[in-house]
Amino acid sequence: MSNIDNLSVNAIRVLSADAIQKANSGHPGLPLGSAPMAYELWTRHMKHNPENPDWKDRDRFVLSGGHGSMLLYSLLHLFGYGKLSIEDLSNFRQLDSLTPGHPEYRHTVGVEATTGPLGAGMGMAVGMAIAEAHMAAVFNKDSYDVVNHYTYALGGDGCMMEGISSEAFSLAGTLKLGKLIIFYDSNNISIEGSTDLAFTEDVLARFKAYDFQTIEVNDGNDLEAIGKAIEEAKADLSRPTLIKVNTQIGFGCPAKQGKASAHGEPLGAENIIALKENLNYPSMEPFFVPEEVYDNFKAVAAKNAKTEEQWNHLFKEYSTKYPDMAKLWDEYYNGATVDRLFSSEDYWKAGEKADATRNISGKILNKIKAVMPNLIGGSADLSPSNKTHMTGFEDFSKDNYGGSNFHFGVRELAMTAIGNGIILHGGLRAFVATFFVFSDYVKPMARLSAIMGVPLTFVLTHDSIGVGEDGPTHEPIEQLAMLRALPNFAVFRPCDEIETAAAWQYAIKSETTPTALVLTRQNLQPQAGSSKEALKGGYILEDSTKSVPDGIIIASGSEVDLAVKAKVELGKEGIDIRVVSMPSMDVYEQQSVEYKESVLPKSVRKRVAVEALSDFGWGKYVGLDGDYVTMKGFGASGPANLLFEKFGFTVENVVKTFKGIM
Amino acid sequence: MSNIDNLSVNAIRVLSADAIQKANSGHPGLPLGSAPMAYELWTRHMKHNPENPDWKDRDRFVLSGGHGSMLLYSLLHLFGYGKLSIEDLSNFRQLDSLTPGHPEYRHTVGVEATTGPLGAGMGMAVGMAIAEAHMAAVFNKDSYDVVNHYTYALGGDGCMMEGISSEAFSLAGTLKLGKLIIFYDSNNISIEGSTDLAFTEDVLARFKAYDFQTIEVNDGNDLEAIGKAIEEAKADLSRPTLIKVNTQIGFGCPAKQGKASAHGEPLGAENIIALKENLNYPSMEPFFVPEEVYDNFKAVAAKNAKTEEQWNHLFKEYSTKYPDMAKLWDEYYNGATVDRLFSSEDYWKAGEKADATRNISGKILNKIKAVMPNLIGGSADLSPSNKTHMTGFEDFSKDNYGGSNFHFGVRELAMTAIGNGIILHGGLRAFVATFFVFSDYVKPMARLSAIMGVPLTFVLTHDSIGVGEDGPTHEPIEQLAMLRALPNFAVFRPCDEIETAAAWQYAIKSETTPTALVLTRQNLQPQAGSSKEALKGGYILEDSTKSVPDGIIIASGSEVDLAVKAKVELGKEGIDIRVVSMPSMDVYEQQSVEYKESVLPKSVRKRVAVEALSDFGWGKYVGLDGDYVTMKGFGASGPANLLFEKFGFTVENVVKTFKGIM
Repeated sequence: MSNIDNLSVNAIRVLSADAIQKANSGHPGLPLGSAPMAYELWTRHMKHNPENPDWKDRDRFVLSGGHGSMLLYSLLHLFGYGKLSIEDLSNFRQLDSLTPGHPEYRHTVGVEATTGPLGAGMGMAVGMAIAEAHMAAVFNKDSYDVVNHYTYALGGDGCMMEGISSEAFSLAGTLKLGKLIIFYDSNNISIEGSTDLAFTEDVLARFKAYDFQTIEVNDGNDLEAIGKAIEEAKADLSRPTLIKVNTQIGFGCPAKQGKASAHGEPLGAENIIALKENLNYPSMEPFFVPEEVYDNFKAVAAKNAKTEEQWNHLFKEYSTKYPDMAKLWDEYYNGATVDRLFSSEDYWKAGEKADATRNISGKILNKIKAVMPNLIGGSADLSPSNKTHMTGFEDFSKDNYGGSNFHFGVRELAMTAIGNGIILHGGLRAFVATFFVFSDYVKPMARLSAIMGVPLTFVLTHDSIGVGEDGPTHEPIEQLAMLRALPNFAVFRPCDEIETAAAWQYAIKSETTPTALVLTRQNLQPQAGSSKEALKGGYILEDSTKSVPDGIIIASGSEVDLAVKAKVELGKEGIDIRVVSMPSMDVYEQQSVEYKESVLPKSVRKRVAVEALSDFGWGKYVGLDGDYVTMKGFGASGPANLLFEKFGFTVENVVKTFKGIM
Repeated sequence: MSNIDNLSVNAIRVLSADAIQKANSGHPGLPLGSAPMAYELWTRHMKHNPENPDWKDRDRFVLSGGHGSMLLYSLLHLFGYGKLSIEDLSNFRQLDSLTPGHPEYRHTVGVEATTGPLGAGMGMAVGMAIAEAHMAAVFNKDSYDVVNHYTYALGGDGCMMEGISSEAFSLAGTLKLGKLIIFYDSNNISIEGSTDLAFTEDVLARFKAYDFQTIEVNDGNDLEAIGKAIEEAKADLSRPTLIKVNTQIGFGCPAKQGKASAHGEPLGAENIIALKENLNYPSMEPFFVPEEVYDNFKAVAAKNAKTEEQWNHLFKEYSTKYPDMAKLWDEYYNGATVDRLFSSEDYWKAGEKADATRNISGKILNKIKAVMPNLIGGSADLSPSNKTHMTGFEDFSKDNYGGSNFHFGVRELAMTAIGNGIILHGGLRAFVATFFVFSDYVKPMARLSAIMGVPLTFVLTHDSIGVGEDGPTHEPIEQLAMLRALPNFAVFRPCDEIETAAAWQYAIKSETTPTALVLTRQNLQPQAGSSKEALKGGYILEDSTKSVPDGIIIASGSEVDLAVKAKVELGKEGIDIRVVSMPSMDVYEQQSVEYKESVLPKSVRKRVAVEALSDFGWGKYVGLDGDYVTMKGFGASGPANLLFEKFGFTVENVVKTFKGIM
């Protein structure tokens, strides 16, 4: 290793250790061990321009082991990304700093994805590589490879143990994503001790089984070997590559290296001095970076700026030669012209006969795709049930990266991370699909969509005991509460065609909020009172004739019809109630106080919520004087109509329940 | 294949196809393809006695591909398990039948685990094999191998794709579970079509990487080859075995075999006739079983009954020779004497100084373990943080199956399935642990705990923004609502030592309800008013001096102290309120109407809920006239005390909020 390389690598280590020490919180183990591979990658192999972090053809880098955030922040500082200063580093993990505990997308310039939950970054990296492959297939022409970049991810043993990475890498191998390169920082240490305790598998053999190229670097400090490995990885475009780099956790810190204690706590003031001495670092002063190190990174940055210039030139030529493609590019990146569809009468046409909202959703999805070329997505092996196939469009496969219909396999969690990664890449909108009950598997990554503000769309069908014969393992109960409770996540459970159209419009127009569509397997009647008001989340579907109604029944989805019929029955007995349709509690909550008071006036206390799912969360609208027609436990196996009867979802029972609170 | 073998295998196929046809719902693909391997296993290799499905040393069989339930029901009928009749089979998937869509534990005799969500059965099977290994290590003496059985699981491509199985099998290989034998029904078909679409990995190579013995059977109809594979699998006790059996989905049905359409819908009346003709089945009559087939299964059952008799004899000798072990065995299976601990004064001693409930929990866990030898468990690589190490007890490892402290690795989902499997095996109680925010990963299997009524205990620490510097990815917000909404699942968020003791007592004494303990990282003050009443889920912690209080503040966990201090401040202004501690909404909901009215009288409408998590679900108690001091979005990275302040968890803000509703 040259002197300047050595010094630069150590600067990354020292900055990381100092920041963690100052914060008195953080994870030095990964930055110390992984500094050389990150340095080699970022300075000699990765295509990136610190002056323009949004350069569309940059290589992507995801720090999947997000607890090693100081590795990334040190690099971003040294390269001058977003003017991240030493002061920012010294505010590591402090309130409102640019250097939070785990890397946060949209928060720190140069961070491509929010990471922390292990394995998540691996799934998102696979999504980014998929997006690159798709964009390249759509846009590249002859010698104009305007899309041509790699996706790198770095993680440790934890990222390899989590099931999500197995799902994602198995799919990456199937799809032969040749521009995906994974660094496995293998240090044989986990929090509880040696990985021998719980993780003795042969990781390289496992990745070979996925059809990855696998390369092992024996010494994590050997820049030359790391560089050679990266070159080999880049050269093999026929399959993804895993580079296993054998490192020592906490390298350089004599008292801590190779030990579990190096992972997740500051090294301690004395150990930091020992580290700097051991590394022959030129100063003991905290956050000291030699000028020649800054110069070294600046030189790389300048070289990279030129690479972008060349690309800009290439793209300009391309735009001249293929003006239609340039126009399409613009549409991909700046939003397709879907507004005309959403303002068309046809889009908002009411259904004429009973139909399942999953079917309706399938039709609407196809209408949207027709005007939105950059929409891609698919299901976790349930497309025929989820109705997510886009007719007339090809499958995305190893032989056809230009396809729009995805086959994720039975891998709900990785599917969601991949969906996030596709959108994070830029240029594309994505949806994912599975049974609503399996939103349980989706949840950890849906949470990341919400935290990052990635507007992924979730098509979740078979939304209640309406599932029928498949029984309790397949019948959602608490899933709606689970997703409604998630911040910055919109959940729609539409009652008919118009409300489904509203839900899709909301999902597609959303810029920073993911949206879930919760849809029925069984047919629902079109509602005379349903309208675009559904875009407000909750609205009056059928009103009382009185200015102050005798009561309100609030329902969503398949139970709206029950509410409307119960209103008719109650009317016969002189009880004049309002029916409120609540397709989205989340969106309703964002409306003005006045609007909410107009829909659910505080003075009207006789309120019944009807929903064939858990009552959890309805108390906010039902209050202390109302009642519920909801599921009190798990479902059962049997024909759906019998289940609705068994569990009390009948007009009679809704009427009875309402009269019970009179 | 002999005639009677052939006829018996086909009887399984025909019964399955007939039942699915009659139900007009179900999945014939798996039973038709897997009938031979299941038949060979159940008749020639598996140790089981249909007359005593609870025989403790029986081999376990888990149908991980639970959609193929008719395979299992056909076997249970033919063997005479629980007198499952032809009528029961013909009521397949009907309301309240013994033959629901997916196999349900506690519902149908002979079903070892509820399955359906793919991969779950694989995780539970690993848990059962772990339990067997542990029980054998504890109980076997010299030539008395009173615990000596195998665990079998059967699943298809979906089970192999789901991440949970990668997690579970990687751990199974690490632990060298030699008595675990997995059947992989490989038919190259998934719902969306050929597995080439999404799943081209080399499954055998992957399992070799986990250190499994791997065996391939080329023809799924070759009983001899299957039998030989099972013998090889059983013979190698040094590692688990995967038997990949190449089958044809929907075998025997000319119009459907080898096609995705065979998977999940009835074959159709004509195809059933074609199936029976093609198989040379002796009758076209639905549900027909030749007498010689019944005789064949009866003969196997009779042989197996003798095997159990021999075991009974062995166990009797063992009991005479090792009376202490026999007593311990009884304690393992019929409950340890923990009641004395729970009724001791020491157990309920109030804390004297501020402490984190995770620390308190660790101390209580150790007290319980001291009197409960059959308690085992561990963490997903966070034991030092979760405080779940049981001091003085050994690690469970490949070299020491007698250990009680588990290292699950960074595998939250498989950990939970394994915990379920350990309890399903019998004889043991188990707990699992991770950060509360990662209950997201745990959820799909926690749901199965709840559905099955498996009393697994979840230790979930770092329960709010109190996490501090790790930031939003590590700070739970909606997780409490998610778990509270899950039916038959008790969640406790205790405020101090006494409430933590109550939570642990509830968890350990629970027979059919899983329990989660949601615990702090940071120190909490002991509450003067806390008491055993916490066992009721919610109770008056500090009362008003008025018979009708001026209002009620309801809180849980770390926010109880805020509520108590706010009461003091409000008191200074002449506002005389009650403080209700609500460690468990789930348990509170089970109390009598009278008790609930005594704690939260309907007439008192001024109510504020204080909890540093989502307000979702609190409306039920807060009503339309109250307010919330809760989290409105995600957390942030920073010191915990600053976060509590930033997000309004201060005495001042609670007081202000209460006065706001006056």
